[in-house]
Amino acid sequence: MKKKKIFNDPIYGFIELPYDLLSSLVEHPYFQRLRRIRQLGITHLVYPGALHTRFHHAMGAMHLMGQAVEVLRSKGCEITGEEAEAVTIAILLHDIGHGPFSHALENSIAEGISHEDISALMMDRLNDEFGGRLTLAIKIFRNEYHKHFLHQLVSSQLDMDRLDYLNRDSFYSGVSEGIISSDRIIKMLDVVNDSLVIEAKGIYSVEKFIVARRLMYWQVYLHKTAVSAEHLLVNILRRAKKLADQGEDLFATPALTEFLRHHYTKKDFVKSPSLLDLFSELDDDDIFTSIKVWIRHRDRVLSLLCERMARRKLLKIEIRNRPFEKETTDYFTGNACSLLGIGKEDVSYFVFTGKLENNAYNSASDKINILYKDGAVLDIAQASDTLNISVLSRPVVKHFLCYPKELEKIVR
Amino acid sequence: MKKKKIFNDPIYGFIELPYDLLSSLVEHPYFQRLRRIRQLGITHLVYPGALHTRFHHAMGAMHLMGQAVEVLRSKGCEITGEEAEAVTIAILLHDIGHGPFSHALENSIAEGISHEDISALMMDRLNDEFGGRLTLAIKIFRNEYHKHFLHQLVSSQLDMDRLDYLNRDSFYSGVSEGIISSDRIIKMLDVVNDSLVIEAKGIYSVEKFIVARRLMYWQVYLHKTAVSAEHLLVNILRRAKKLADQGEDLFATPALTEFLRHHYTKKDFVKSPSLLDLFSELDDDDIFTSIKVWIRHRDRVLSLLCERMARRKLLKIEIRNRPFEKETTDYFTGNACSLLGIGKEDVSYFVFTGKLENNAYNSASDKINILYKDGAVLDIAQASDTLNISVLSRPVVKHFLCYPKELEKIVR
Amino acid sequence: MKKKKIFNDPIYGFIELPYDLLSSLVEHPYFQRLRRIRQLGITHLVYPGALHTRFHHAMGAMHLMGQAVEVLRSKGCEITGEEAEAVTIAILLHDIGHGPFSHALENSIAEGISHEDISALMMDRLNDEFGGRLTLAIKIFRNEYHKHFLHQLVSSQLDMDRLDYLNRDSFYSGVSEGIISSDRIIKMLDVVNDSLVIEAKGIYSVEKFIVARRLMYWQVYLHKTAVSAEHLLVNILRRAKKLADQGEDLFATPALTEFLRHHYTKKDFVKSPSLLDLFSELDDDDIFTSIKVWIRHRDRVLSLLCERMARRKLLKIEIRNRPFEKETTDYFTGNACSLLGIGKEDVSYFVFTGKLENNAYNSASDKINILYKDGAVLDIAQASDTLNISVLSRPVVKHFLCYPKELEKIVR
Amino acid sequence: MKKKKIFNDPIYGFIELPYDLLSSLVEHPYFQRLRRIRQLGITHLVYPGALHTRFHHAMGAMHLMGQAVEVLRSKGCEITGEEAEAVTIAILLHDIGHGPFSHALENSIAEGISHEDISALMMDRLNDEFGGRLTLAIKIFRNEYHKHFLHQLVSSQLDMDRLDYLNRDSFYSGVSEGIISSDRIIKMLDVVNDSLVIEAKGIYSVEKFIVARRLMYWQVYLHKTAVSAEHLLVNILRRAKKLADQGEDLFATPALTEFLRHHYTKKDFVKSPSLLDLFSELDDDDIFTSIKVWIRHRDRVLSLLCERMARRKLLKIEIRNRPFEKETTDYFTGNACSLLGIGKEDVSYFVFTGKLENNAYNSASDKINILYKDGAVLDIAQASDTLNISVLSRPVVKHFLCYPKELEKIVR
Repeated sequence: MKKKKIFNDPIYGFIELPYDLLSSLVEHPYFQRLRRIRQLGITHLVYPGALHTRFHHAMGAMHLMGQAVEVLRSKGCEITGEEAEAVTIAILLHDIGHGPFSHALENSIAEGISHEDISALMMDRLNDEFGGRLTLAIKIFRNEYHKHFLHQLVSSQLDMDRLDYLNRDSFYSGVSEGIISSDRIIKMLDVVNDSLVIEAKGIYSVEKFIVARRLMYWQVYLHKTAVSAEHLLVNILRRAKKLADQGEDLFATPALTEFLRHHYTKKDFVKSPSLLDLFSELDDDDIFTSIKVWIRHRDRVLSLLCERMARRKLLKIEIRNRPFEKETTDYFTGNACSLLGIGKEDVSYFVFTGKLENNAYNSASDKINILYKDGAVLDIAQASDTLNISVLSRPVVKHFLCYPKELEKIVR
Repeated sequence: MKKKKIFNDPIYGFIELPYDLLSSLVEHPYFQRLRRIRQLGITHLVYPGALHTRFHHAMGAMHLMGQAVEVLRSKGCEITGEEAEAVTIAILLHDIGHGPFSHALENSIAEGISHEDISALMMDRLNDEFGGRLTLAIKIFRNEYHKHFLHQLVSSQLDMDRLDYLNRDSFYSGVSEGIISSDRIIKMLDVVNDSLVIEAKGIYSVEKFIVARRLMYWQVYLHKTAVSAEHLLVNILRRAKKLADQGEDLFATPALTEFLRHHYTKKDFVKSPSLLDLFSELDDDDIFTSIKVWIRHRDRVLSLLCERMARRKLLKIEIRNRPFEKETTDYFTGNACSLLGIGKEDVSYFVFTGKLENNAYNSASDKINILYKDGAVLDIAQASDTLNISVLSRPVVKHFLCYPKELEKIVR
Repeated sequence: MKKKKIFNDPIYGFIELPYDLLSSLVEHPYFQRLRRIRQLGITHLVYPGALHTRFHHAMGAMHLMGQAVEVLRSKGCEITGEEAEAVTIAILLHDIGHGPFSHALENSIAEGISHEDISALMMDRLNDEFGGRLTLAIKIFRNEYHKHFLHQLVSSQLDMDRLDYLNRDSFYSGVSEGIISSDRIIKMLDVVNDSLVIEAKGIYSVEKFIVARRLMYWQVYLHKTAVSAEHLLVNILRRAKKLADQGEDLFATPALTEFLRHHYTKKDFVKSPSLLDLFSELDDDDIFTSIKVWIRHRDRVLSLLCERMARRKLLKIEIRNRPFEKETTDYFTGNACSLLGIGKEDVSYFVFTGKLENNAYNSASDKINILYKDGAVLDIAQASDTLNISVLSRPVVKHFLCYPKELEKIVR
Repeated sequence: MKKKKIFNDPIYGFIELPYDLLSSLVEHPYFQRLRRIRQLGITHLVYPGALHTRFHHAMGAMHLMGQAVEVLRSKGCEITGEEAEAVTIAILLHDIGHGPFSHALENSIAEGISHEDISALMMDRLNDEFGGRLTLAIKIFRNEYHKHFLHQLVSSQLDMDRLDYLNRDSFYSGVSEGIISSDRIIKMLDVVNDSLVIEAKGIYSVEKFIVARRLMYWQVYLHKTAVSAEHLLVNILRRAKKLADQGEDLFATPALTEFLRHHYTKKDFVKSPSLLDLFSELDDDDIFTSIKVWIRHRDRVLSLLCERMARRKLLKIEIRNRPFEKETTDYFTGNACSLLGIGKEDVSYFVFTGKLENNAYNSASDKINILYKDGAVLDIAQASDTLNISVLSRPVVKHFLCYPKELEKIVR
């Protein structure tokens, strides 16, 4: 009888690490680094409690997976011991490839390679290190296993990833609107024709889940101040890379220096395995210590951007439903140069527009299916006679404009 | 410096009774009786925790009123001390006239008189007893005071009544879908042109409130088993009154006996003030002790109905979107007679149909207005570009059929 | 694959009814009556939310038992399917014999028979009705089964009964001091030499449990206003029985009438089985409807007592560490007669003293054992080097004096 | 009517920033840096959720101060507007001088200067910058103001600091044992003879607070793994400083480099004001990025220590009540040299002993006073007749021994 490791979690109370292999994966440096990568990146500048990490989220999703497996088995769905371990590993590692602030910096640190690509490389590397014991987990993760519902538990409209992150992000940010009844939803899970379904009496919980997800998008994930902060971060990295290209001196950890000074592509990662290890040394701290130091950099643009970030003097952001007129942006652009004492070629670091997009439920790509007592299965968008899911699934697009807050008074 | 009375509340922590007059009102027998009248009537047969009373709800709504007054004052909205007391009294007494299981039994115990009528009579009586000190509260309650926003705090789409009951009903039933951020909504309250508005940044909390309310309707207030139980209750009272009309002996408390044996109308209540006091002696216990005793009544219909209630052998209920065919109901009706050993004239106590109706947001009657930073005010139905409020505000109608569960096997 | 019944519980989320036999037991009238018997009796007059029933508590304790069985099995402790069912039945029925307000009225309604006696009779009756299928459960309940740790799960210092009621009473009363980490404690359970133990790393949770229990005693179970209310209740029943003995007319349900008019003993219950069924018809409602009616009884003592109860004009209560002097009580006694217009022989209904006793942990009768990693087992009172358990286990005695509040002004 | 800034807090819902001056203080770089200094330092290696910052804690304590001022005023205690602002500033800034991991690193980064010293320097600096508007706040902070109870709100056995951090640390770590009813305690506050007291009916909440604090010490603050991690951190800095003294090259941010290369004292801080600004540039990130880089340092001791920290291969720690025998430590010391390939002079970085000390309530230095209805005031240690506070106030000492886990197998 092997002792299990127990982690404290404010949300679920206890999280148990159930398999030997899982413990070893958690102890691996690739996974331990997730302790230093925040789930919501820079959002803690808006919600000061939102400091939780990808490490904790992965553990939470793993915990929910254990519950889901148990519920499905109790309803007669066959899941072997080997499959249970594999699907648990798959959810534990689903985000392993995320880098620092990866939502924002995905193409700033290493170009042309997504966090999914890096996850894939890391899983393969781990599979080698663990003598092929991750093979089934990887098949499930890539949806190459014949029991497709196992993949759906890892990645679909109602996967354990979403169930955990909605609750976790709500909990730590204090935005109680996003809290969902994950245990209630999991209790209602079943499998019909190799496909995950929700029993009909769970329909309200699913509706609530869809609404909660949408609200979290607008209130947290796409919160305007967080959007402004993320773009500031992107611009800092963009400027730093430009300066590095020009041979300028830049304080940074050795790992970050390497990525600032080169333009590595996916091909490079595949060719030289050491690049993956170098990437795995990066975390949120590398970025922020550099930002603090760069405040004193002699490049005025970099210095100004970094000071705004470290002192939380973010750019003012306006959001609306239609694009901003060229006239407006020109106006801000023109005034920004003189205000900040920078050239026209650099003003786009401080004045810029963009758009935000979200749809809460996308029935085109992937459905949430409701199982009725008579065995009928219906997409939630049809099943819900009371909530207009079709409206929720229509993507919402908004436009934003960022500029230095000081310009507000000048312009108006 | 007068000591305040403090009540423990699992939801808000503490509830303070802030005024002398309020303490005296709470101590009055009219109010104390609310300790024995459950907020959700018979629903605890479905949600065993839903035993909270109208007493606790009234205290909770009063607590939220205190918060709302403070928030509005802090935003520069003038509310005098006298008005603050009055609006607090108004919310404390808003449900004072509810009788036992009044949702179900409104027209069974006393016909032709609503709980609103009785509330009005009781408030007038209390006003007399307290030397006219409730006059302003009553004016606000009846929307006869010139500051109409005070009435809206007591009764509107976003009043303190709803904010409390949604949270309270969710909390005690354990249906977490209904939990709303009442403090967040209250913090966003403001008054524009004598009308309550919500600051724009509270829009998601309001959307969540509307969705939560709708979900609570279908998951709790109109839960099919609760609907079945309520109709059973109605039928028991209907039968008892019929027997009383026929001069049958019926165990009951003196107060309930009086209402069983007479058909009092609103006019009677106005004419003889003692009737109000008699009514105020009724509570949930009067009904349930009688039901338990009536199990042994020699009238077979009453006995069968009461046994089902006390033993929780409720009638089977089916719910669907279109009415049930006469064929189906005839089938059940026919079989019920022989099954139960009752005559055709009495079968409607056991087999019956009906409909359920709900709309989460009714913008026709009363709007929730959103206040933008530029001073613009928009109905939430227009303001929300992401949630289709207009769909939520369309009433949803469902049809139900009740019959003894034993017939299931016979019929199919 | 049999569908399980699911109950909503605000504390644990969901409670599943796992066995067919358990469903049938829950549906039995003996068990359904617990829906109308509050766990904390009259305490809701102090904590308005404390309306939860023995029905819900029994379900909650059953839920925790399921968790405990699972944890113990996962640590290699053998519990057969039959034993798991039996221990679950034992906890479900552990309080089956409680009557209305049984904490207060145990010897008022039926004398010389405890709720444990009635539980035993009811279990035997149920065992007969269910063809002997409760035999093992009853053996475990009575500690006659050779695996004694199963009995400890039902009844010991750390049984599922206490784990549930502490949390449930805290939750519904809103006294957050009593909240304990039941899942944390259960996760730490193990069995050594047929005896329940707690793993050493759970020691702080156990200490917290002992402190929480003690605080709940003084803040809820022995709250002075609740004590006063309970004694008022006892005195009402005492007076009613005296009047019944004298042949006075008394409104009551048929079942309560029977118990008011006779002095049934344990022997009577054993001799005539119908008495048990009659007892099973009693619940909190029987008591309270009578009290409301008795307000108008011509016996002044009964009338005054009942009015105080229904209007919540409880007797003033003083609590202190040493007994009250005869002088003091005489003073109140003397004045009470003239104040209330009653004779000296009846004053003890309104002025009386008594004592309260509590010890949080009683290591003499039953220990909480801590299991160390090296296999050593120590009583918590020795194991805790930081909390003085021996002090907590010393019984605390307090003395109280009750009298009509109106006397306060006269006397002092 | 000035708009208040609102912060989301998972614990209190909303935190409002009530004064203009407070907003400006929060925006100051000295305060913003607290966003990057964790309240519990390295403890998140044990409790992965414990990532909350000193920034959030200071905001929370400020929020509670607002409640306390309101409660005291409502009880007739005079607190002027100016005093209210000052005491709120005092609590907001009470921890302003904390550096990275200051619990552990107080004497490692800058020697001979405590975080209290730095707080004092920073407050004086801020007072200069804000034209003397912090003078009263500083007087209260230093207990030089004639209303001493204001100082007690900032710093005493029951100050707003403790009330917030106990709840916050419990919340984020998930150790529910530490949750206290801060609102309940604050509601019971009063002032007698210029001294904070607790109304007698709050005595159980205070007892619970003392027990909770003690449990948090042993379960979180002095958790053995956290202690081991902290000492590892201390040893890393100790080694780095030694290498810096020897002129070795060491990667670090400019600010950290300065403190590694010099031995600044309190006198230096007073003499050269720029040192304070340099110190204010340090945060947790500076330490951790260096640790990651130092893994590859050519000094074997530093490299091994840093690898253990970054990979979470902490030293094994044993805790017991009596000191460890020299024999035992010699045994580990001897074996560690050969195991790690280091010299005897460096083994103390990997094998060492120490002691832990805690007392939950120290009545010698500062009492918690209970106010009875008759006006009497008693120290809780005397007032509590049921919990042995004197035992809790006796300091508990434990001894620990740390060594590389790999030695476990060799030695035993």
